[in-house]
Amino acid sequence: MEKIQVAVAGYGNLGKGVIANLNNFPDFTFSGVFSRRNIETGFPVYSYADAPKLKDKIDVVILCGGSATDLPVQTPEMARYFNVVDSFDTHAKIPEHVEKVGAAATEAGTLAAVSVGWDPGLFSLQRLLFASVLPDGADYTLWGKGVSQGHSDAIRRIAGVKKAVQYTIPKETALNKIRGEGTAALSTKEKHLRECFVVAEPDADKALIERKIVTMPNYFADYDTVVHFIGDDEYDRTHTALPHGGFVLRKGNTGGPARHLLEFSIKLDSNPEFTSSVLLAYARAVSRLSKEGKTGCLTVFDIPYSYLFAGGTNEAVKRFL
Amino acid sequence: MEKIQVAVAGYGNLGKGVIANLNNFPDFTFSGVFSRRNIETGFPVYSYADAPKLKDKIDVVILCGGSATDLPVQTPEMARYFNVVDSFDTHAKIPEHVEKVGAAATEAGTLAAVSVGWDPGLFSLQRLLFASVLPDGADYTLWGKGVSQGHSDAIRRIAGVKKAVQYTIPKETALNKIRGEGTAALSTKEKHLRECFVVAEPDADKALIERKIVTMPNYFADYDTVVHFIGDDEYDRTHTALPHGGFVLRKGNTGGPARHLLEFSIKLDSNPEFTSSVLLAYARAVSRLSKEGKTGCLTVFDIPYSYLFAGGTNEAVKRFL
Repeated sequence: MEKIQVAVAGYGNLGKGVIANLNNFPDFTFSGVFSRRNIETGFPVYSYADAPKLKDKIDVVILCGGSATDLPVQTPEMARYFNVVDSFDTHAKIPEHVEKVGAAATEAGTLAAVSVGWDPGLFSLQRLLFASVLPDGADYTLWGKGVSQGHSDAIRRIAGVKKAVQYTIPKETALNKIRGEGTAALSTKEKHLRECFVVAEPDADKALIERKIVTMPNYFADYDTVVHFIGDDEYDRTHTALPHGGFVLRKGNTGGPARHLLEFSIKLDSNPEFTSSVLLAYARAVSRLSKEGKTGCLTVFDIPYSYLFAGGTNEAVKRFL
Repeated sequence: MEKIQVAVAGYGNLGKGVIANLNNFPDFTFSGVFSRRNIETGFPVYSYADAPKLKDKIDVVILCGGSATDLPVQTPEMARYFNVVDSFDTHAKIPEHVEKVGAAATEAGTLAAVSVGWDPGLFSLQRLLFASVLPDGADYTLWGKGVSQGHSDAIRRIAGVKKAVQYTIPKETALNKIRGEGTAALSTKEKHLRECFVVAEPDADKALIERKIVTMPNYFADYDTVVHFIGDDEYDRTHTALPHGGFVLRKGNTGGPARHLLEFSIKLDSNPEFTSSVLLAYARAVSRLSKEGKTGCLTVFDIPYSYLFAGGTNEAVKRFL
């Protein structure tokens, strides 16, 4: 069987995660890394200007940049030459992104899958499945325990803070309320706790830092926030990984008094490593669907699971149905 | 929009569940019930011999019979005239069933989706998704808490038993082992407890009944089995519903030491009511795919979630991605 030639665009946590995980996807071979910088990776490094001449040598490019500025430009640009997969995660802008990437891919005759990962991604799939099989119900998404980069960055901008990380933690009380008899709508703050680990500069006023954190508008003021000051060593030893996770639940009825609860949850030691694994499975699907002649921009909602699995439909039926 | 004309074949728990749930699927209208018997349902009742002349009046027939003898005959037979959906659940015989139904449907130009429900069905989907995005790992399925019809029937055949129900219960110790650090392979009996509620005849020897249950080969002898004797009234009040549920878990790595846990669980007040709801969502998908010209036999693995959802792809992207 011919192997799928895959490249990554970007060499941060996500790009490195894809490469480290390739041994679990034996139907792929690795082509190299697209980068704006002149970096040492041990793999071929391409500039984005090389794209046109690499067109026929790479099956799928996995875009590994950020959603704020990289992906809105890079995904449609790379779709002009390659099949692409990205993890664009600015939820409100997804329809616009789908349209832009779709226009580029349709014109070029390539295929794209965007907003692949776990949220958007696996969580979205569960929300759609749950709402489809249980239309009379309510759904709930809770995130964590996991590192929120945005909130960690906000703490780091406070004077006197040397290092900081913020964990979003789903509240057990909220989970139990959802799983139990109630049908309460719960706000984001009712569902989550914010726990912060901060290394202060030696001469910093810790009480002031804590007050600045817990009263910070939008980020912390409306939440239950806990702040811990810790030492440099403990921080480096315990808080440099990027764990994440969360829950999607739906509770509903099917025409009678009987109630049903559907629940999906994930617990990830490393958010970027797991996301890279989801991206690879969808890169496989994109490569296969492209070979069948499909073009344009898809989301996870458009792709049957049989395309994600190395063994294909018949083996999937035997092993998993 | 033209409504989907749906009929059920069979008027047991599942068929009644479909009908009771139709108000949650407003894009359907109900055509009637196929039955071998001359029954009163308040809806049109058709004999199977009417199928050829109803061919153009019904879009999808949901087969609601049993997997042992009904579906292996009825699903391929009805596929000669209609799009069909069934919940065939004899796991080992699914490939053969897919082939037989596929041959009939392909010849007739109809479309079928078989083995739809929660296991096979939603559980299968999760197992396939989990194995695809986390190929280096191990998966676990646990069932319950729920009524096992086969085990309940086995108890009822013991002399002196008036009524009996058996609940399969997933063991918390097994779940915690899977969720924790271990990687142990667990047998079915290590994962489940069997709890039996029995109403004995007035003159029956309860100690003998209990001994016959817990030593029954295949069904109970290898399991941790608990037997409770209760009164007629308590039985009728507490043990006539058909709850079920279960867990699908996968734990694995993505090329590094980071481990990830994926977990799906359901808790159903009524197994047949929920299954009927899943069947309706897939009946919608089959009707749509058939209108696009698709024929033959599909499983849940071949159908993108966007086809299950009343609102279609664009609304799904906006609401759930």
